[in-house]
Amino acid sequence: MQFDEELALECGRTLSTYQVAYETYGELNAQRDNAILICHALSGDHHAAGYHSEGDKKPGWWDSCIGPGKPIDTDRFFVVSLNNLGGCKGSTGPTSLNPESGKEYGPDFPLMTVKDWVNSQSRLADRLGIKQWAAVVGGSLGGMQALQWAISLPDRLRYAVVIASAPKLSAQNIAFNEVARQSIISDPDFHEGHFYEQKVIPKRGLMLARMLGHITYLSDDAMREKFGRMMKQDKLSYDFAAEFEVESYLRYQGESFVGHFDANTYLLMTKALDYFDPAREFGGSLARAVEKIDVSFFVASFTSDWRFAPERSREIVRALTDADRNVSYVEVEADQGHDAFLIPIPTYMKAFSAYMGNIQTGVGS
Amino acid sequence: MQFDEELALECGRTLSTYQVAYETYGELNAQRDNAILICHALSGDHHAAGYHSEGDKKPGWWDSCIGPGKPIDTDRFFVVSLNNLGGCKGSTGPTSLNPESGKEYGPDFPLMTVKDWVNSQSRLADRLGIKQWAAVVGGSLGGMQALQWAISLPDRLRYAVVIASAPKLSAQNIAFNEVARQSIISDPDFHEGHFYEQKVIPKRGLMLARMLGHITYLSDDAMREKFGRMMKQDKLSYDFAAEFEVESYLRYQGESFVGHFDANTYLLMTKALDYFDPAREFGGSLARAVEKIDVSFFVASFTSDWRFAPERSREIVRALTDADRNVSYVEVEADQGHDAFLIPIPTYMKAFSAYMGNIQTGVGS
Repeated sequence: MQFDEELALECGRTLSTYQVAYETYGELNAQRDNAILICHALSGDHHAAGYHSEGDKKPGWWDSCIGPGKPIDTDRFFVVSLNNLGGCKGSTGPTSLNPESGKEYGPDFPLMTVKDWVNSQSRLADRLGIKQWAAVVGGSLGGMQALQWAISLPDRLRYAVVIASAPKLSAQNIAFNEVARQSIISDPDFHEGHFYEQKVIPKRGLMLARMLGHITYLSDDAMREKFGRMMKQDKLSYDFAAEFEVESYLRYQGESFVGHFDANTYLLMTKALDYFDPAREFGGSLARAVEKIDVSFFVASFTSDWRFAPERSREIVRALTDADRNVSYVEVEADQGHDAFLIPIPTYMKAFSAYMGNIQTGVGS
Repeated sequence: MQFDEELALECGRTLSTYQVAYETYGELNAQRDNAILICHALSGDHHAAGYHSEGDKKPGWWDSCIGPGKPIDTDRFFVVSLNNLGGCKGSTGPTSLNPESGKEYGPDFPLMTVKDWVNSQSRLADRLGIKQWAAVVGGSLGGMQALQWAISLPDRLRYAVVIASAPKLSAQNIAFNEVARQSIISDPDFHEGHFYEQKVIPKRGLMLARMLGHITYLSDDAMREKFGRMMKQDKLSYDFAAEFEVESYLRYQGESFVGHFDANTYLLMTKALDYFDPAREFGGSLARAVEKIDVSFFVASFTSDWRFAPERSREIVRALTDADRNVSYVEVEADQGHDAFLIPIPTYMKAFSAYMGNIQTGVGS
């Protein structure tokens, strides 16, 4: 969808015209009160569920949770899923042509924040005729968007669903992002972001960033179960070939990512994560940030997630209870680490389905 | 010290001649039974304590624990500290000249294992006239060497001190090593390890490896206390300059490392870590590996260490108790993560000193 109204960004710059790619699943009801917005995480996109277009080789990234009879039941809800601005899957971002120069934006694309995304998403809601979302839902960086929606535009949603997320990054989270960024930026093929013109991509850097990312998505336990110290061959080779299964796995993940993700988008997404801190303008108090909002929250975390551990979700829950807001919280026993939020773990599915099932629709606004 | 007897290595290759750099502190007693071997970790060297040579700008890396009145009391013990083979601080390694080619070994230097190091260290003991160490002591990868000494050559030591270590790497440990290796190997300035001839060093890769290493050396808590989300400036810059203190810290650590460490040595050290698994040849049972040895163990771990967490030390302790061996274990409350083993934390110093104080010397062998 094309937007031609100027969008003012937190960094002080503006986007004069931009495109937003999105998918929808299910039907908007007559009362227009059954719409759900799905917000994606670092490397996600608008293809969240099912097989939507003919070219789809895989079901969407959150197919476990979106569809008929699933927690986000498309028989009841009208689901909207978009690719965020700054992305590389159809919405305007670093790989798009900059109307001012006629060349790809590259590093000249403005850095986006979670707040900027919420603003752009609210414009999409306007255009779709959705005054109020039944819920805004997301995991990880997506959960941050749901939280920001509730704080910035509380009248425009009834429920916020914040899964495997955090109220802000820790120093360790930022540190991992910084190593990923330096991997990309220091790759000689990065050319300060202008690699499109050079007809190269900073493969090595993007691969390293993705390998590192994968370590933080899996728990130590999940890695132990999945790979342990399993070797590719019986004998040690005493060289730098991949000898342990976990090495092959990471290399494969890194290599396959390079083919379908943009390095400038990766950088931008990590910065949006680093910057996210909605309590900042409330004197550092998240409780104050949420004290007047009339939005109900569902917060979920996973025991083995060390990227955004349960403690981080509990910070959100504590702020909400301190502010006497409505919140349900579930801490799911799961071995899969941060990735658990994408996996149909029975206790998670049950809690998520039950919560979403209680959201009333078709009653008018 | 120069060695001209051939050293057979686990990889099947041999070193025909090699140099070992070492320092000693304190005096060997008449009974020659007060000698202690210090084994270093990934980036360590023979300069473990005090100011030894005129060029020393800093006291040794374990000065907190070695010296008069310290846990490894140089008024009582004769302390030997060496740079391991494959290192880059004076012992023969990738930066040394290969006598066969007249050029630096580079990637042709054989990959070393912890067992190879123990063998080379036993030769150093022979030359120093030390039939039996009072103790072999190390932290992290150094602790692995102490454990291997006890298993391979139990008659040649009375005590093994294994601090902040593990009986083998986990899949997650290997994964972090693999990302560090790929950082170095994929740096165009690495030239498949032959970068010396090109008069370059793979700075970017080595810097990334070190940055990543530092994340795993510090605990999440330590990072929070040290940096939190502290910013270098009040306002966000919306670019890729270091904005958070933790970013500056990591960049500084990475950059300063590049000037004094060799990339091929770094690769070799990470492989030695990956390969370490002394239980492997005992059907995977560490208890069986230690069941017949007459060596007393001191094992210590630190609560916030997530590189080699207390659970990993407890695996060693469990194997020793299962085999009915003599072991003392202390789990030190500490916020500093893996780095804690280098820090003079009072409870750690007390337990370590008390244990070392009970080691009898001057009684003959």
